[in-house]
Amino acid sequence: MLTFERVADDGAARRGRLHCRHGVFETPMFMPVGTYGAVKGMSPAALRDVGARIILGNTFHLWLRPGTDVIARFGGLHRFIGWNGPILTDSGGYQVFSLTAMRRITEDGVRFASPINGDRLLLTPEESMRIQSVLDSDIAMVFDECTPYQTGDRLTTEREAAESMRLSLRWAHRSRSAFDAAQAAKGSRADSESSAGPETEADSGSRADATSRTNALFGIVQGGMHESLRDESLTSLTEIGFDGYAIGGLSVGEPKAEMQRIVAHCAPRLPADRPRYLMGVGTPEDIVTAIGNGIDLFDCVMPTRHARNGWLFTRHGDLKIRNARYRDDRRPIDAGCHCSTCAHFSRAYLHHLSRIGEMLGAHLATVHNLHYYLSLVEDARAAIDGRRFEHWRAAILSDRASGLPD
Amino acid sequence: MLTFERVADDGAARRGRLHCRHGVFETPMFMPVGTYGAVKGMSPAALRDVGARIILGNTFHLWLRPGTDVIARFGGLHRFIGWNGPILTDSGGYQVFSLTAMRRITEDGVRFASPINGDRLLLTPEESMRIQSVLDSDIAMVFDECTPYQTGDRLTTEREAAESMRLSLRWAHRSRSAFDAAQAAKGSRADSESSAGPETEADSGSRADATSRTNALFGIVQGGMHESLRDESLTSLTEIGFDGYAIGGLSVGEPKAEMQRIVAHCAPRLPADRPRYLMGVGTPEDIVTAIGNGIDLFDCVMPTRHARNGWLFTRHGDLKIRNARYRDDRRPIDAGCHCSTCAHFSRAYLHHLSRIGEMLGAHLATVHNLHYYLSLVEDARAAIDGRRFEHWRAAILSDRASGLPD
Repeated sequence: MLTFERVADDGAARRGRLHCRHGVFETPMFMPVGTYGAVKGMSPAALRDVGARIILGNTFHLWLRPGTDVIARFGGLHRFIGWNGPILTDSGGYQVFSLTAMRRITEDGVRFASPINGDRLLLTPEESMRIQSVLDSDIAMVFDECTPYQTGDRLTTEREAAESMRLSLRWAHRSRSAFDAAQAAKGSRADSESSAGPETEADSGSRADATSRTNALFGIVQGGMHESLRDESLTSLTEIGFDGYAIGGLSVGEPKAEMQRIVAHCAPRLPADRPRYLMGVGTPEDIVTAIGNGIDLFDCVMPTRHARNGWLFTRHGDLKIRNARYRDDRRPIDAGCHCSTCAHFSRAYLHHLSRIGEMLGAHLATVHNLHYYLSLVEDARAAIDGRRFEHWRAAILSDRASGLPD
Repeated sequence: MLTFERVADDGAARRGRLHCRHGVFETPMFMPVGTYGAVKGMSPAALRDVGARIILGNTFHLWLRPGTDVIARFGGLHRFIGWNGPILTDSGGYQVFSLTAMRRITEDGVRFASPINGDRLLLTPEESMRIQSVLDSDIAMVFDECTPYQTGDRLTTEREAAESMRLSLRWAHRSRSAFDAAQAAKGSRADSESSAGPETEADSGSRADATSRTNALFGIVQGGMHESLRDESLTSLTEIGFDGYAIGGLSVGEPKAEMQRIVAHCAPRLPADRPRYLMGVGTPEDIVTAIGNGIDLFDCVMPTRHARNGWLFTRHGDLKIRNARYRDDRRPIDAGCHCSTCAHFSRAYLHHLSRIGEMLGAHLATVHNLHYYLSLVEDARAAIDGRRFEHWRAAILSDRASGLPD
């Protein structure tokens, strides 16, 4: 189980420290997304260099490729991918529900056709917990239905959102039970497993912890855009009891104001002594605002995916490196940035690499964007420690809106 | 001009030290290929880490993208790409002649349609020297025709090879004149250019050298598979006088024995006090054999291109990482390898990354393959220094033929 230290508060914003099986990190924190067991283009060492302390793995993708039998051979995802720090895994639910045309939801779980080879598969709370147990992530997520904002042109009704949320609650119960059973079984096998490490030197340091502590499970608040449903979800989840609580079902196509309304409503109602995680969010502005609401953890593909498309984040707004204006621009992306890309490379070179589709360009852009996101949460932490969060937040939003200097 | 120190000999094999404008390196040496100003997936720091000391840039590609106007803004390729060590550029000839259907050769040069946008372009010895002067490579190559081994099913005749070689000789004269004129002009502009560096901190250390020394130009021996034509080319080139001499027109589809025959014939006849460069070669076996003939420099896309296709080089032969047998193999590529990929990652993880097409897999494979090639020439140097080259060569060829242990 994980320990969450409260370090400081500033208004609703919180500074914390999360002790996981594979390490300790400060919150608020952003988690880069490593879908298939790799943050695209980034080695574990490169991730450390940009300030990453916890990464996210996608249960659904890893289940299909390479498959749990392979990861079990390594004793978990950490040793398979060579990342020794904390890992959070999602439940696979979000990905399954994204396969709208190919899946059928029942009380039991979700039946769907594998997008890799068409195999008929069934994902249930129990199967999700089994997979996450094999992945051996520091933080697992309950299997839930991510209630859609709309289907086609039609908005999800309150009744549909309620049914979806209550199904997720029943699945949260089953997830809790299955997770606890898997952890108990793993604890009793721990001694025999301690010899199952990889033959590389990857992470021998974490072995002692592995036998002495168990992983954590987070609940996920659903309920669509309806405060009363969110309250019902939140109350029921806290009755079950989780190591942390996430707000799910946002950043799914709803207007920005709707998302902010739900975050502002839910965040202060989540248990204060447990970490709070806003799933799949978002822009720098979204993150800064949500920290102000008391959120501790974030994940999003935006910095990594945008990097590969030449979209770079800076203090003064965003920069599209493929724009012809950067063709012979000798300046770094951001003269005030301390990432290794800005220390060594010009906009013109990054423009060139992006235009020719060279993967080094994607790597260097990813380094910059992840460094930007991780520096943003680092700066937020310093602002909360210094009891100047509100001033900092306003300055960040103002700088971001100002646009890049010529 | 470049200085070549002879350090040791062992039979025909040579140990040397090449002093270029941007640094000194030991020979025999392998040069990774950075076609568009980047060795695919490798930052300059990563190249240093695997042991690269000189890289090759492709004049033809860089001429088309980003264009010489952009690179001129940076005062040369080094500052544009952030690589502070020596760079060798080819002449663009090989790439132009590869456009078989789209180009026309005249005494003046080669007319062709740009594969990027269809523009009608003309590449001449003078234009190649102008471009290479803008790139400001430590070592430039003369513009020559790479005589084909065959056209369709028909082998190139001795008469055709002779005409091609003599055209290359006339172009070598023109290259020498144009190169010297460009260097002289650059020398007189050096003071005013010394303020044209990038605004990053990339390579301020190299500025002093830039004004005090000039670049080098290598001649290229042609003549197809005919010793008498090779002798004529070699004699005429040495009469013109170059800083080093390359053997071109090999590794163009000829049988391995033909290549070895021509290398064995030409290498000992090249001036002993100048570096000898075998262009576009080759496999580890080719390189080891050619070092035994007295070759000092090599370049080839094989380690980098093969890496991206999952083909990995080891002491005991080659390993195709996509093979299903590696799906859950916890061993590194080669337990005896000291590269960072083998230190941290398993075959199973690399297999997974290669199967999903993740660029981190291409990067990690490139790190391994370049480390293998650069360790190979490092070991060759040690063997020559220790006067045990022949024994080492035999052991390498035997180990490579033995196959990987199960």
